[in-house]
Formats: sequence, structure tokens, C-alpha cells
Amino acid sequence: MPNVSLTRAVHFSASHRLHVPQLSTAKNRKIFGKCNNPAGHGHNYIAEVSVTGEVDPMTGMVFNLDTLKKILDATVMKQFDHRNLNLEVQVFKKVNPTAENIAIEIHRMVSAKLPRQLKLEVKLYETANNSVVYRGE
Amino acid sequence: MPNVSLTRAVHFSASHRLHVPQLSTAKNRKIFGKCNNPAGHGHNYIAEVSVTGEVDPMTGMVFNLDTLKKILDATVMKQFDHRNLNLEVQVFKKVNPTAENIAIEIHRMVSAKLPRQLKLEVKLYETANNSVVYRGE
Amino acid sequence: MPNVSLTRAVHFSASHRLHVPQLSTAKNRKIFGKCNNPAGHGHNYIAEVSVTGEVDPMTGMVFNLDTLKKILDATVMKQFDHRNLNLEVQVFKKVNPTAENIAIEIHRMVSAKLPRQLKLEVKLYETANNSVVYRGE
Amino acid sequence: MPNVSLTRAVHFSASHRLHVPQLSTAKNRKIFGKCNNPAGHGHNYIAEVSVTGEVDPMTGMVFNLDTLKKILDATVMKQFDHRNLNLEVQVFKKVNPTAENIAIEIHRMVSAKLPRQLKLEVKLYETANNSVVYRGE
Amino acid sequence: MPNVSLTRAVHFSASHRLHVPQLSTAKNRKIFGKCNNPAGHGHNYIAEVSVTGEVDPMTGMVFNLDTLKKILDATVMKQFDHRNLNLEVQVFKKVNPTAENIAIEIHRMVSAKLPRQLKLEVKLYETANNSVVYRGE
Amino acid sequence: MPNVSLTRAVHFSASHRLHVPQLSTAKNRKIFGKCNNPAGHGHNYIAEVSVTGEVDPMTGMVFNLDTLKKILDATVMKQFDHRNLNLEVQVFKKVNPTAENIAIEIHRMVSAKLPRQLKLEVKLYETANNSVVYRGE
Repeated sequence: MPNVSLTRAVHFSASHRLHVPQLSTAKNRKIFGKCNNPAGHGHNYIAEVSVTGEVDPMTGMVFNLDTLKKILDATVMKQFDHRNLNLEVQVFKKVNPTAENIAIEIHRMVSAKLPRQLKLEVKLYETANNSVVYRGE
Repeated sequence: MPNVSLTRAVHFSASHRLHVPQLSTAKNRKIFGKCNNPAGHGHNYIAEVSVTGEVDPMTGMVFNLDTLKKILDATVMKQFDHRNLNLEVQVFKKVNPTAENIAIEIHRMVSAKLPRQLKLEVKLYETANNSVVYRGE
Repeated sequence: MPNVSLTRAVHFSASHRLHVPQLSTAKNRKIFGKCNNPAGHGHNYIAEVSVTGEVDPMTGMVFNLDTLKKILDATVMKQFDHRNLNLEVQVFKKVNPTAENIAIEIHRMVSAKLPRQLKLEVKLYETANNSVVYRGE
Repeated sequence: MPNVSLTRAVHFSASHRLHVPQLSTAKNRKIFGKCNNPAGHGHNYIAEVSVTGEVDPMTGMVFNLDTLKKILDATVMKQFDHRNLNLEVQVFKKVNPTAENIAIEIHRMVSAKLPRQLKLEVKLYETANNSVVYRGE
Repeated sequence: MPNVSLTRAVHFSASHRLHVPQLSTAKNRKIFGKCNNPAGHGHNYIAEVSVTGEVDPMTGMVFNLDTLKKILDATVMKQFDHRNLNLEVQVFKKVNPTAENIAIEIHRMVSAKLPRQLKLEVKLYETANNSVVYRGE
Repeated sequence: MPNVSLTRAVHFSASHRLHVPQLSTAKNRKIFGKCNNPAGHGHNYIAEVSVTGEVDPMTGMVFNLDTLKKILDATVMKQFDHRNLNLEVQVFKKVNPTAENIAIEIHRMVSAKLPRQLKLEVKLYETANNSVVYRGE
């Protein structure tokens, strides 16, 4: 059967601050610039989640898009939407909420709910001009 | 010579209904939800067609963009634009017109007109948030 | 108090056919071109609904965005999303479902649920390049 | 001379919380929903600032676009970009930072730096689907 | 009958240089900055052309969209697409090809071909962030 | 450590003409069509530059986004923005400035400034519908 990738994009609004406690204030400011602002700032994030696998010959689908939407609602949207990532998401109490780490966390949450045979890729837009991709590798 | 991918996007408007005759009405409704609505619905599809190959050292092109446009006009646009996919496209009288199957059909039509040495990839947006990719594998 | 316009965009997918029964087949074809295709076609419509009024000095809002979303769900989305406009929407059994007439119908449905003092404007995109605006005048 | 409107869009990322201290916790939650989340959330805002006036017959410009950019840098970008609006912007310590009030504040800041004869309009996108317009009236 | 505005967007690619011969080299550089670069530069312009009038009760249209497309092909696209505006468009041999003046020229060309009773508005994007509107006033 | 791709998009406006001196005028016109117009034309190009590598466990970043911006400013923006590519960019005095060749040149300039262990990919949009990708292979 043909292999197809299916992508669903979800949009969430969250605030964050880039900061590494092990580093000095000056070092944090130097590395993260205005993203280190102590009071935080925010973004309209877009997560494009892609699953790749064989097309079911009966339904013509790789995976049910509605099921994918429900998985994204129960993970990405529930955990991140209208949240302060540093203060309200467990993993980001210890890990810096960079776009890279947010994409890795989305990959972890979503892959736990997907059938094993599907490959998963997460593209995360922080702004229209800045994005990251994580493929679980 | 360097290998480059060249992408041309075309836009078409079509209607469709997701439905598998071998399945019961209830099963169809359960799997396809509102996309199973008997009277159909429609989309502004965007097909991004990419060809990959070596850049011609004289012209600086992988493939003539104008030729690619003509191929897309003679295939995607001619067969799908302002059509009811279920009723007016031969293949979808038997095959469910999911985004996956539409992308596979575009791949089949376009690759038949391309030089052999070019790799072809088709990305199809059904809406801004839902898309599929088929690479002929 | 300052006057502000608040806009909420909703997205729906529907199919339609442009056709006027009082006109001949040839005349219909001439006026509406490929949009007159008997089997129909479809679009991802975007309706941008704007309400204009005074900002409430306490809440800082012209109108509660959540209430506006609920009104749009109960009207535009419920009546039009994943529908065949000609066959499934009462008004379009008699009226041609052009972008103009769809915008006028959205204006009628939404204004019936809005407080009197708010001015209403409806912008409807049929494709990224074609749109209409109706201001109730 | 012909009257033309010139628009410049600027993008900023900020966090905020919708909350009115004079109202109870329950009332705040009811009116502002998830936007009342105490830890805040954020957006990529887009401010489209339009000035309208006569075209200078010599230069062919309503207003120098570069000057407009500098005004927006010295106001919108300096005050709001990568900020927590509630904690770091003076006016929003007392006024609820709704899209309406942010647009009004941008209008106030920018109009103070513009020649008198130009009309000013501010359109503010909070997300791709939610926006407001303030014309100083 | 209801009044509706109908908008059609067309896209053209052109090069230009902002320069006023009556002004000194230094003055030109100061006013127009990098847009004064003698070798020129270019843009993907988008012209959104809107006509406003009464909806025809029979067809449900303000104006035939296909006719509008033909008018835009015979004016905007024919005169401006893949052109050097300064060297190849008559009016810009004397008039500075600012976005303002291009919009005014589009308005002049299109209004000459429209029925008298329609109001015409031209919005021209030079980039995604810079645009102008001319309403013939 | 996880491998992540980080993408930064930059926008530049430039003019160019597709033309190969070794070919006849007729041949140039046939191959490049309106893009061969002697007076040139222009585009708003978007270059999406992606670097792939391991995420630093301390900072949570593949590469410092601010450093990437500075590299793009010192290369793409400095060389190409508001330029006539044929007349003002050394390499395009001999090489045809097709999208393919511009992407290859961006890849060459940027990779010279990047740490060795990062993989580089350049996607270049000439218009919203035409783009190329070069991965250095």
C-alpha cells in the first residue's frame, strides 16, 4: 500500500520565558536576549503534527483525522493552550521552554497515544518566521 | 550538478463526499462524520507539486516552470477544478476521494508526463489545517 | 466611550452551484461559466464578522468574543458547514448562492441575535482572491 | 490632491491576562474564560497602522514609510514587544489589556507623533481569527 | 436592493526605483533610502480591486467576477506584470512609482472600463507589511 | 541528544532577469518567457533557512536564533535586499539568477559561517506559488 503523511495543525496561545537557572543572570541575558525578560512574553504557536503510514485500502485514510484531532486536544491543547509554560507545565519547571523543547514534548505526548506503526513528525511555529521540526530521532 | 526541488502550487475548488459503499450507513457516519453528508460539501484545495533533480548548468533550472504549469493545467486543473470529485472523476467512482487518494491520483497523473529522472512529491492541502504528502512510495 | 470594531473569522467548507432557473441553460453557462457545472463544486469559505459599538469601560470589550463565537456556531457553522448550499439551505432553494447572497444571509442570521446598538459587517472570502462585503445597507 | 491611506504592519509578541479587579473571581472567570488564567498566556500580535492624507505631488507619498516605521519602533515595539502587558505597561496596570484597549493605547501613542492633518486607524490582530479596529472616534 | 462590495485580487511581479529627478542625489537618497538604489529592485505586488454597487436580484451578483478578471487582465496585468515600472510604463516616466501612485494609476485604468454606477477602491500591497488604499477621492 | 531542525525566514525584495548570453535572443525568449524581459522585473523573495543538529542539553537550543539572524543579515540581506541581482551580485554576472541558483548561492554564503556539524537546507519562495529547496547535495 502507498505510504502517505497526514498533517493536522493546531493553534495555541501561551506565554513563556527562556531562562536556565544554572547560568548567571548576565549569561542568561546574553544567550536569550529579550526572550529572557523576567516577566515573560507570549506567542500564538502553531503545531503541525504529521503521521506517516500505509493508506488503508478500504477507507482511503492513513489515520482517522478526527481521532488525530482528539489526541491533539487531549495533549497539546489541554496542556499548553492559554497557559504560562514555565509555571503551569510540569516538564518546563526543569527544562527550558525553547521551541525545540516544546516540539520534543509534543512528540512525547502524541506518540504515546498513536499506533506503533505510524511515524510521527512535529513542526512548531513560534512566529511566522521562526519554527522547528522534531522527528523523534 | 546540485540537486534541487522545484515546487509549483495550484489551487482548485471541488466538492466531494467521503463514503465507502461496502460499509453500512452507520459505519460510514461513524468513520467519516460530517464529511459523509450525502449531499456533499467542498474545499479550496491547494496542490503543491515538487520535482527533484539536477540543475541544468546552462539554464540554471531543474525543470522548466512553464512546462510544469502546463502539465498541472492538463491534469490537476482540467480533471478536478470546479468538479464534483465523486460524480465527475473516473477513479473516484470506485475509490473514496480522501485527501490521501486525491494526492495519489495527482501523483499518478503528473508522473506520467514527467521525465523519468525527476522525483515527484505531491502535498495536498484540503484546508489550511489539514494536508497530506505522497512521495510515490 | 471609544467606538471599536471587533472581528471574528469562522471557516466553513461547503459546496454550491450557481444557477438561475428562470434563465436558459445557455444563458446560465454564459453568465456563471464553470461555476454553473451541474454536479457542483466547493470552497473553504471564511466569514469575517465585525460588530462595531462602544467599548464597555468596565470590561474593556465591545462585545464578548465568546458570545460572538457562540452566535456564529449557532448560525453560520450550523447552517453552512459541510453542506451543499443549494440542496440543504432553505433560502438557497430560491436564491442563487453567490458570495453576495451568502454574505447577505449571514448578515440576516447574525443580526437577529445581536444587541440592536451594534453595527454589523460581514466579509466573506470564497477563495483567497475573491471576496465580498455586506454592511446591511 | 488624491487622498490615500498608507498602512504599515508591525509584529510583536507579548503576554497578558484579562482581569478586572473590581469584579469577583467568579465573575472574571465567567466573562473572560481561559483568558482570565492567573498565570497569563500570550500572543503574536499584529498591529496594522494606517495613516490617511493627501499625496505629496513631488514625492508621491502620503507620509514617509521610513518615518512611520521609526514611530512604530519608538512606540508599539518599544513598549509592547516581549513584554508582560499587565505588569510592564503603565496603562494596563489600571486598564484591562483587551485587544480593544491595546488598539486604543496604540492609537494614543502613535497619534501623538503624527502630523495633525493625517487621519489614523489601528487594526490589531490578537490571533489570525480575532481582531479589532479603532479609528479614534 | 442591498449594496455589496466585490473584491478580486491579482498578483503581479515588477521592478521599480523611487527617484524624483527634480531633487538632488543626496535628497533622493535621504527620502527614499534603499528604494532609491539606481539599479532598482522589485516586488510581488497584490492589487485588491473592489467594486461596490447594488446586487442584481436575478443573478445575485454586483458585477460579473469573470468580467472583472478580464478588465484586470487587460489593465493591471498587461501593463505591470513582469515589467520595470520606471522604464516600461508611460505614466511612471514622469511620476514616481510609489505604492500610492501605482494604486492611483490602477484606479484610473480600471475605472475607465467600469459601469459608472459602481464605486471603485484599490488596495495595493507592495509587501506583506506595506500597503496603500485609494478610493478615487 | 535529540536532533532538531531550526528554521528562520527572511524576506528580501530584488529585481532580476532570466537570460543566458550563450543562447540566442529567440531561444532565451522561448525558455524564459516573460522572465526574459530585458528591462527586468522583481519579487518579494522569502528565504527559509534551516539548520539541523543536536539540541544543547543546557540551553535547549540547536543553534542560537539570534546568531542565525545575524548570519542571514550579513549574507542574504546584505547581498540581495533591494538589489538588482544581475547587475549588483557578483556571481549572477555569470550565472543565471533562477530561484535554483539563488538558493544555491544562499546555501554557499550561509554554510561558510555555520559550525561544521550543522546540516543546512535553504527553501526559497520566488512567489507564494513558486519555490525551490536546496540541501547542499
